[in-house]
Amino acid sequence: MLSNTTITAICTGHGGAIAVLRVSGNDTLKIVSSIFKPLKKGFSLASDAEGNRIYNGYITDNDGNEIDRVVVSVYLAPHSYTGEDVVEISCHASSYIQKEILNLLIKNGAELAKPGEFTRHAFQNKKMDLSQAEAVADLIASKSKAEHDIAVNQMRGGITLEIKRLRDLLLKFTSLMELELDFSEEDVEFADRTQLKGILNETETYLSRLVNSFRLGNAIKNGIPVAICGEPNAGKSTLLNALLNDERAIVSDIPGTTRDVLEDYLNINGVTYRLIDTAGIRATNDQIEKLGIDRAKNAIQKADIVLIVLNAAGDILAQFHEIIPNDFPKSKVIAVVNKSDICGDVDVNVLPQDVHVVKISAKHRTNLDALFAKISQLGAADYNQDEVILTNVRHYTIFAEALSSIQRAETALNSGLSGEFVSQDIRDALRSFAEITGDEITTDEVLGNIFKNFCIGK
Amino acid sequence: MLSNTTITAICTGHGGAIAVLRVSGNDTLKIVSSIFKPLKKGFSLASDAEGNRIYNGYITDNDGNEIDRVVVSVYLAPHSYTGEDVVEISCHASSYIQKEILNLLIKNGAELAKPGEFTRHAFQNKKMDLSQAEAVADLIASKSKAEHDIAVNQMRGGITLEIKRLRDLLLKFTSLMELELDFSEEDVEFADRTQLKGILNETETYLSRLVNSFRLGNAIKNGIPVAICGEPNAGKSTLLNALLNDERAIVSDIPGTTRDVLEDYLNINGVTYRLIDTAGIRATNDQIEKLGIDRAKNAIQKADIVLIVLNAAGDILAQFHEIIPNDFPKSKVIAVVNKSDICGDVDVNVLPQDVHVVKISAKHRTNLDALFAKISQLGAADYNQDEVILTNVRHYTIFAEALSSIQRAETALNSGLSGEFVSQDIRDALRSFAEITGDEITTDEVLGNIFKNFCIGK
Repeated sequence: MLSNTTITAICTGHGGAIAVLRVSGNDTLKIVSSIFKPLKKGFSLASDAEGNRIYNGYITDNDGNEIDRVVVSVYLAPHSYTGEDVVEISCHASSYIQKEILNLLIKNGAELAKPGEFTRHAFQNKKMDLSQAEAVADLIASKSKAEHDIAVNQMRGGITLEIKRLRDLLLKFTSLMELELDFSEEDVEFADRTQLKGILNETETYLSRLVNSFRLGNAIKNGIPVAICGEPNAGKSTLLNALLNDERAIVSDIPGTTRDVLEDYLNINGVTYRLIDTAGIRATNDQIEKLGIDRAKNAIQKADIVLIVLNAAGDILAQFHEIIPNDFPKSKVIAVVNKSDICGDVDVNVLPQDVHVVKISAKHRTNLDALFAKISQLGAADYNQDEVILTNVRHYTIFAEALSSIQRAETALNSGLSGEFVSQDIRDALRSFAEITGDEITTDEVLGNIFKNFCIGK
Repeated sequence: MLSNTTITAICTGHGGAIAVLRVSGNDTLKIVSSIFKPLKKGFSLASDAEGNRIYNGYITDNDGNEIDRVVVSVYLAPHSYTGEDVVEISCHASSYIQKEILNLLIKNGAELAKPGEFTRHAFQNKKMDLSQAEAVADLIASKSKAEHDIAVNQMRGGITLEIKRLRDLLLKFTSLMELELDFSEEDVEFADRTQLKGILNETETYLSRLVNSFRLGNAIKNGIPVAICGEPNAGKSTLLNALLNDERAIVSDIPGTTRDVLEDYLNINGVTYRLIDTAGIRATNDQIEKLGIDRAKNAIQKADIVLIVLNAAGDILAQFHEIIPNDFPKSKVIAVVNKSDICGDVDVNVLPQDVHVVKISAKHRTNLDALFAKISQLGAADYNQDEVILTNVRHYTIFAEALSSIQRAETALNSGLSGEFVSQDIRDALRSFAEITGDEITTDEVLGNIFKNFCIGK
């Protein structure tokens, strides 16, 4: 199952002052040594390197030309992230230098790591279980406290600990029931049905909660989508700038300036919201503008929260009906009555019931706190930081299957079916559990799918 | 001159799997120790850390909450980049984690490093001279072999070695001439005027070459600007895509789609070209499109090379005259006759003399090699990789001043003026030399200006 290749990748992001390339595998020291000229005379990385040590020197190409002055950090197997020999090369973050060093490593025998391949090696070398490995990708991607806490929770085994406890209990019962089959002529019941019902019920409750947490977890992971819509020139872009406190969107007095769907992220109380600034919606013949309006309508449909910016100087109900579809749930809509500094006495009671209303002036940035509070209330009302929350589609799918299996087992048990059927359903659920942790042999295809969503270098 | 503060910054770029934060200064170990929980029991970073060592552990906030599992690399003064105690913290590249760790370091006593401040510390601790420190920024920014080689040359002291040699010679002569003043009544000449003329002449030649190299150096550093212009729908964006081999620019059949000046970089034979895709130039009433056309005309004026994409299906001479100003040097223009697959027999001899002509089909990507060769020929004809080339405005300004001083000294010498005047001019030149290397006391303001153009984290 383990590959013998030594892999390498650039692990740091684009830009910055320092870049790090990682090399992992049996030939790590030999390969790096072939392009590393240590400052210390007589020292050889291949034969003299110790673990957890840093060495100074130059990376040179095969003609001896100096590419960069670097430091290399050495980790010896099994005391490394992957469990293999690892060297990290810290170089100047020039894109040219990074590319050159990468090319030299490959030329000297390393293979370019696929996304997540270092973590895959760590999983295969039993440094972590599968759901923990997956949490690494979530941790790296985390942009908010909420995402970070969910990922750390999962890396610590937050899902798998509970799953393992339930699995051990279910395994005991299903084994007892299978034992009954060997004594089927004697009509004994080793497995206490009442206790089993309790366990199944507990498992069902746990799985239901997990499966239901996915919608929120997914939203937290990707940013809870908030569409900002309104008529042209209602002040959408000014509102976005006010919320983000910068000049990200181009704001001009020419109606229809925002032609694309712009996105930006906002953090309120540790939860990320994805703000989607949409094109102003109006009748138009401009082809490109029409495209923008289609995208805007699409963004409204997909959003968890819709901020409709209403120009208090105009007919706010008419603006509302032009933009918000009739069947759209009103409780997801915050009517942001803008320019309230000019027209403070506008009657907001004309708006449909259930619509939330906040009066602001985007230009003068007044009453934004009330708007933040309202967004937070609609967006993360269900979020409890101590609970395990699913963010991963693979986990969601598997737990949903496990939940059906457990529900089938309960039905079978309640209708007095033979233990054989109940046991079969429980076995199905147990197989699902094993897929989460990677305890059963996981096929290359499944592993490939899991790790391909990692960034390269991890 | 040296500050006592301990500084910190995120040193790696945005994105990636790993991020590195650097801490440098007297309190480095104490500060990092206050947020670092080592895996090894009983170990204290503040008291037990050795240089060039790696330690595993967790970063925790002041309430003991785990922020991330990290490794820290320790460098003890003076054996570090800055010459001070340095710790580098490698964490997962989550933007949340990076921000949290940075905040914790600052909360515990570190100051956010200003751009280039680590290198400024290295200069002040005499780890490198000023022109070498400046080359660090160029090295990091280098995207091509040419930029890289120029920066490495300068880091090795390519400019300063020659400057020091000339300085020593000039210093000898100017001292001798000043000695003459003490014996002024005796009318002696200690300084051999013929030899001095030779030295001044050599210095003038060297400085002239350096000053003249700046235009090329600057172009290589920023990418030699190549404007791509043409009538709407002539195929500019398709050409850009073909050159870059990707789908970077939005290409549509609606004329006027490219409204902004897009830029991208192309590497030919180790030299970077900055491709500037301009809006199609035509008469229009669209306000935003007019803005784009103004920018396009501006881009043409500033470019070193202009690719004018001519539609072979139309009148190519008319297209040429509409876009290229009459007084624009024709030898900088490459007429790219596009759609030559459809209209291969177009007569290119109608175009003005000195204009370079390449027939291609952007859509079918034919004859692009000839275009690459032509761009390379016009762009980097003067580039010789073994010569010292100026890329830095500060160096250019100072060397230009030094050149005038030397020329004044030559004039004074040739017109038989008193040694006093000659000596004064040479002293001026020597002062300029010292500003390059930072040998004279450099004011905080000058240092501030130099290092502010660095990226943060270096």
